[in-house]
Amino acid sequence: MDSRETTVGTYLLERLHELGLRHVFGVPGDYVLDFLDRVVESPMEWVGTCNELNAGYAADAYARLNGVGAAVVTYGVGAFSILNAVAGAYAEQVPFVLISGSPNAGQREGKVRMHHLTSDYRLQLDLFGKVTVGAVLLDDPVAAPKVIDEVLSACVSRKRPVYFEIPTDMVDVSCEAPVPVTFFRKPESDATSLSDSVEEAAGMLNAAERPVILAGVELQRFGLEASFEKLLEVSGLPFATTLDGKSVLSEEHAQFAGVYMGSWSAREVREQLDGCDCLLSLGVYLNDISTGGFTAGLPEHAAISAHGERVQIGSHYYRDVWLGDFLEGLSGELRRRDYERSHASSPYEGLGAYGAEAGKTLSPARFYDAVRRRLDGDTILVAEAGDALFAAADFPISGADEFVTQAYYLSLGYALPAAMGLSLAREDRRVWLLTGDGGFQMTVQEISTMLRIGLTPVIIVVNNDGYLVERMIHDGPYNDLQRWEYDRVPGVFGKGALGLRAETEDELEAALDQAQATTDRLVLINAVLPRDEGCETLERLGRELRASQKG
Amino acid sequence: MDSRETTVGTYLLERLHELGLRHVFGVPGDYVLDFLDRVVESPMEWVGTCNELNAGYAADAYARLNGVGAAVVTYGVGAFSILNAVAGAYAEQVPFVLISGSPNAGQREGKVRMHHLTSDYRLQLDLFGKVTVGAVLLDDPVAAPKVIDEVLSACVSRKRPVYFEIPTDMVDVSCEAPVPVTFFRKPESDATSLSDSVEEAAGMLNAAERPVILAGVELQRFGLEASFEKLLEVSGLPFATTLDGKSVLSEEHAQFAGVYMGSWSAREVREQLDGCDCLLSLGVYLNDISTGGFTAGLPEHAAISAHGERVQIGSHYYRDVWLGDFLEGLSGELRRRDYERSHASSPYEGLGAYGAEAGKTLSPARFYDAVRRRLDGDTILVAEAGDALFAAADFPISGADEFVTQAYYLSLGYALPAAMGLSLAREDRRVWLLTGDGGFQMTVQEISTMLRIGLTPVIIVVNNDGYLVERMIHDGPYNDLQRWEYDRVPGVFGKGALGLRAETEDELEAALDQAQATTDRLVLINAVLPRDEGCETLERLGRELRASQKG
Repeated sequence: MDSRETTVGTYLLERLHELGLRHVFGVPGDYVLDFLDRVVESPMEWVGTCNELNAGYAADAYARLNGVGAAVVTYGVGAFSILNAVAGAYAEQVPFVLISGSPNAGQREGKVRMHHLTSDYRLQLDLFGKVTVGAVLLDDPVAAPKVIDEVLSACVSRKRPVYFEIPTDMVDVSCEAPVPVTFFRKPESDATSLSDSVEEAAGMLNAAERPVILAGVELQRFGLEASFEKLLEVSGLPFATTLDGKSVLSEEHAQFAGVYMGSWSAREVREQLDGCDCLLSLGVYLNDISTGGFTAGLPEHAAISAHGERVQIGSHYYRDVWLGDFLEGLSGELRRRDYERSHASSPYEGLGAYGAEAGKTLSPARFYDAVRRRLDGDTILVAEAGDALFAAADFPISGADEFVTQAYYLSLGYALPAAMGLSLAREDRRVWLLTGDGGFQMTVQEISTMLRIGLTPVIIVVNNDGYLVERMIHDGPYNDLQRWEYDRVPGVFGKGALGLRAETEDELEAALDQAQATTDRLVLINAVLPRDEGCETLERLGRELRASQKG
Repeated sequence: MDSRETTVGTYLLERLHELGLRHVFGVPGDYVLDFLDRVVESPMEWVGTCNELNAGYAADAYARLNGVGAAVVTYGVGAFSILNAVAGAYAEQVPFVLISGSPNAGQREGKVRMHHLTSDYRLQLDLFGKVTVGAVLLDDPVAAPKVIDEVLSACVSRKRPVYFEIPTDMVDVSCEAPVPVTFFRKPESDATSLSDSVEEAAGMLNAAERPVILAGVELQRFGLEASFEKLLEVSGLPFATTLDGKSVLSEEHAQFAGVYMGSWSAREVREQLDGCDCLLSLGVYLNDISTGGFTAGLPEHAAISAHGERVQIGSHYYRDVWLGDFLEGLSGELRRRDYERSHASSPYEGLGAYGAEAGKTLSPARFYDAVRRRLDGDTILVAEAGDALFAAADFPISGADEFVTQAYYLSLGYALPAAMGLSLAREDRRVWLLTGDGGFQMTVQEISTMLRIGLTPVIIVVNNDGYLVERMIHDGPYNDLQRWEYDRVPGVFGKGALGLRAETEDELEAALDQAQATTDRLVLINAVLPRDEGCETLERLGRELRASQKG
């Protein structure tokens, strides 16, 4: 092989490593074993998971904090099992790379049917083309380097998943070696649209009496935290975040007002946002969750919304204005004012002392209050969809990027494998997983992988005997779950874990103390909670949804 | 409501019940709760599973023995998680009905984004259109009855999956009540093509000296067992089955020669098939598994193959000849001859006494031999892809339809949820699940559901510490698995199960005795086997594949 040559499989892996990938998740299968040999030889670590969907969730969470994540699966059975994780990455703008092995050229072109084939050999590429921003079959070694670069560039530039399909006989075929490229392409702003939109927005914000900023997840995805922080500094404006934008900056920031979800929000943050006379939304997606079921009372005419490459002010739009450029522009135009959040102190300053009452059975409010005060700058919190997520909205997150969740796609079962992905993405932090029993049951086996590779998260199972969110909005026997011995679960998957059970406040305190003291082991706390009661946010949400269904 | 009216949701459920459905698998979610209320009210039983893919596998297995199976999921996260099971049902011709809730008309038509949405509201329908023979959005109550009938008819006539998407606001909208219809449409044969193909095939078979029949899975799917048995009776010909066709008739049938998989087959059956001078294939799909990696030495020119609506003889085809009509036609034309299978006795007559040796560690050959003699007419065996499946190929199955597997799509993890589906499809049989550790880990949580609803299968885990089939053909560190305490697993999911561990022959015999004696509980046997050794078939297969990869 020429020194300027490599092979198709190695080329792809080298590029991924160059983008910062250090771990590859997945499940082996005969169409992908040749490629896995190249993975094992690479400087990256192979993390075999119990099934493909779990690999997908882990890679998605990893990508959120690492900038890129990847999973490798076999043809058909593997790829179709991970599809939901890819769709979730698309919905939530996550740079996720899926690589699937596939039958070789001779098999694909002939009339023979290979195992794992559903109907025809184009089906899989076709399906993944619809849930990614780039899906390619690497069947041409001459074109492969350019194709790989383009697809990876789309992934990291647009923060969406991409798909590579590698036939078994292409992995080790020679191709040109990588040349220097820039993968992230900053969108080009139109100069006039940019200056006009900045001028109009600055004029409105500077004239307003009670302007507020709502910060969304795009600020995190596109790495615009520093620009955003500068904007806060020059303007002195208060800011809330959406649920998916939570922890885009430290929540100890003096201007932070809380997490906003329309009528599901805590009273103070709702008052601040709904009562503002000019709203600046940055990188926010409006959907039924971020708006609290479309109950947001945000101003329509006095609203400035910038996301992606578009700025909307009132009812008109500016195109080709990239969020990053808009932020920079605004920072130069906003007048400084004193901070004006509606409540005098930080939403998290009132934590005070806890004082567990011995023998008192756990209530959601007291339970979540006990847990949230355990978080600090050395932890990352991942919350499962459901009561855990709504409760976590009010947990104080002291550092940027120390909270991860699927706040919009809301795929139950995501959070447990995500805890694994996050533990590997940020080895300097301990991951705390707050999950419900329903989500836990969906993907439980991944505890096995965490034990195998020696991860030490704290897993807290909110054991309330059913799908509580559904129970609050529309109950039926289908919302009941089998009650497991959750604290005994890690023990059957491997050695070294600590399983604890807490029914009372003092038991919970002791378990949390033990979890914090035992940093070298995976700790699972089975927190037994009442069947029909949720956190404060869920109770509010349940009332709202029931009312709207009647209406 | 007019007495000749019902509602869209109830219409669909009434039709499913009419087709013989008695159980509905699935996972709740807010877009499908209204529909689940109708399921709970229906005469059918709701079986909530731990996750959607598991529901899909259970419904697929149920459909194989029940004639139709169904799963209900929520929008997006639910539907995309079950897609692999639907693709598997397509690949293996299984009449599987998937029902997904979805956002209501107002939400779909407006610009608002609802949680669980990937990109646009047509995506899901589009994707499922590609892995089904009918995918419809039930958004028109006037058209719904006809549309439902047509799609269900396609499902049971073509034995392939179909997809219904019901917006939340359509479930309880009035529509016309069901009228009598015939769902199964027997394909119409062309009279001339039928008589010509029968005449040519009968001429060849009657003239041949050593003709043999190879029976495939279509005979089972289309309920042609009686026609096939009649053909055997009038002709006296010996028959083998493919792996997916195994147990289409009782394997105690005097003319049964064994399971054929090319060079992976046992010697006797390979000699019989490869040495024949005329082969009649009935309902067989030729693929890399059924042909033992395309090593089948079957005659090409003296081959008659009938499947679906096509008969191929040598290199020419007859179109529009339905398999059922062809079988009937042939039965009237074949001459009777004496049975001529190559080995004098039934492949299963040599079982003899077993004689466990105390303290002797298990070997694959002895282990499988000990297990297979426990099966009888009161059991159904389901085997997981891998060593378990290849070993099970040689297990004697005494009744028709008492063996189920995915012998072509081979989705690892299928068999455990399938054991649940089969237990409900055939409540008069006890299901024995033979699974490997890799497959078991993928879908383990469904043991919880089996315990919740009181099912009592025997689960045997072939615990050999890795993906053995892959290890045999292409090894690497990715084939290693975390070793679980398999026998302790059921105990963390619920009460009442019996977990046993066997490392030696006498321990295995004791465990099998206990499993057979304990008919009112789920029994799991953790069978500890050597790391690098497979059943006889797998050893043969491994040698063949390694040789072909080198060549």
